Amino acid sequence: MLKTKTMESIKNRRTIRKYQTTDVADELLNDLLETSFRASTVGNMQVYSVIVTRDVEMKEKLSPAHYNQPMVKQAPVVLTFCADFRRFSQWCVQRNAEPGYENFQSFMNAAVDTLLVAQTFCTLAEDKGLGICYLGTTTYNPQPIIDALQLPRLVFPVTTITLGYPAEIPDQVDRLPFQGLIHQEHYHDYTPDELDQLYAYKESLPQNMKFIQENKKETLAQVFTDVRYTKKDNEATSVNLLNALRAQGFLD
Amino acid sequence: MLKTKTMESIKNRRTIRKYQTTDVADELLNDLLETSFRASTVGNMQVYSVIVTRDVEMKEKLSPAHYNQPMVKQAPVVLTFCADFRRFSQWCVQRNAEPGYENFQSFMNAAVDTLLVAQTFCTLAEDKGLGICYLGTTTYNPQPIIDALQLPRLVFPVTTITLGYPAEIPDQVDRLPFQGLIHQEHYHDYTPDELDQLYAYKESLPQNMKFIQENKKETLAQVFTDVRYTKKDNEATSVNLLNALRAQGFLD
Repeated sequence: MLKTKTMESIKNRRTIRKYQTTDVADELLNDLLETSFRASTVGNMQVYSVIVTRDVEMKEKLSPAHYNQPMVKQAPVVLTFCADFRRFSQWCVQRNAEPGYENFQSFMNAAVDTLLVAQTFCTLAEDKGLGICYLGTTTYNPQPIIDALQLPRLVFPVTTITLGYPAEIPDQVDRLPFQGLIHQEHYHDYTPDELDQLYAYKESLPQNMKFIQENKKETLAQVFTDVRYTKKDNEATSVNLLNALRAQGFLD
Repeated sequence: MLKTKTMESIKNRRTIRKYQTTDVADELLNDLLETSFRASTVGNMQVYSVIVTRDVEMKEKLSPAHYNQPMVKQAPVVLTFCADFRRFSQWCVQRNAEPGYENFQSFMNAAVDTLLVAQTFCTLAEDKGLGICYLGTTTYNPQPIIDALQLPRLVFPVTTITLGYPAEIPDQVDRLPFQGLIHQEHYHDYTPDELDQLYAYKESLPQNMKFIQENKKETLAQVFTDVRYTKKDNEATSVNLLNALRAQGFLD
């Protein structure tokens, strides 16, 4: 199969968590953002906004909301990709039209728009030699981010990336065998044998065995359920997320 | 600014709604999917599945859930990108670990994973000369899709694309002036003048003026609020979406 440059760039990608001090030029950033806005968007409404953080004090404000992950303060640029039905709704009001976007489906539409732009941006940025890291923490505790970035009603932070020129070349992380993530025509549930096979390589990796030891667990799965993504944390952050969606007007 | 091929491909992209009858080879499809699975994923959990639809009867089953948009039956391939915490949870159970993913935050994490994969796939597919169309309808009435694709608990359809070789080269659609979608350091609310400027080009387009006339409206915004994305429809589909999330185990 002939590989294109994009294909190779994505096949070889790594998440970058350490950045050079070199800044990302405004011209380049704007060009990448403008191009990413060509991504598909529901009804061509473009219901998203991007908040660009370069200011040191703003990074310090955002940092605790992202569990003090060091990339936030270390990266030259932090981008918060927000679902935004505010601009569109304000335009409607200004044009004698009654907006009807204070609901969960509108959040979903806007969140999809937002994530397609974010990922298009990341593909373009990596293709230009930049490195990115997604911060899933954006939805864990959205209110402090909303406060720091002064996001008004109908604007919601969906994801954040840190951006800069790589100061590391980390090993590429493993992926599950891809056929295990594809289903022909309908969902085929997994047999215990299939699950064993799917996770065998991941479980065999030395760094994952080390995680088990360090955390005094029996299995890698327990590292996820008891330490990294616990039921207690997921339930607490679900409350944060739903409360913030309600406060921003996307949920009754 | 030097443009890369990826940059050019995205800058020139169009959504494709009409496809040649030529099939998309399995080898190519699999290569594109496998590459797209290099997209960032929360905690490297890869909490998504892709359902490949080629079967004519399956397309007929999916069609009404997508409001009978003709692309579903006409495209050689339909891909439904699903949030999937089931596989991961089953693995946890099999490894003596207690999964804690029956909650809204886990849906959000999985939905982000899913959309990053979907968009990476689309960028790669377009780079290979294929055309795609996103079907936002996926979340408007998820239950019939869940039924048709036999999605079990903790699997949820987040987005769908139709895929094939283009049988049309539509005009590129407009985008808002990109600076209007970017905010430096914090959200800057829009003044009435700024809104006028942002939407001026869109409002000036002959096809949009035609929409206003055809729908007997005063403004383009009214075409959106009264015809295309109405409050009534958004509220009804919000109920569908929340009910389906509850039924699939992602919401109490």
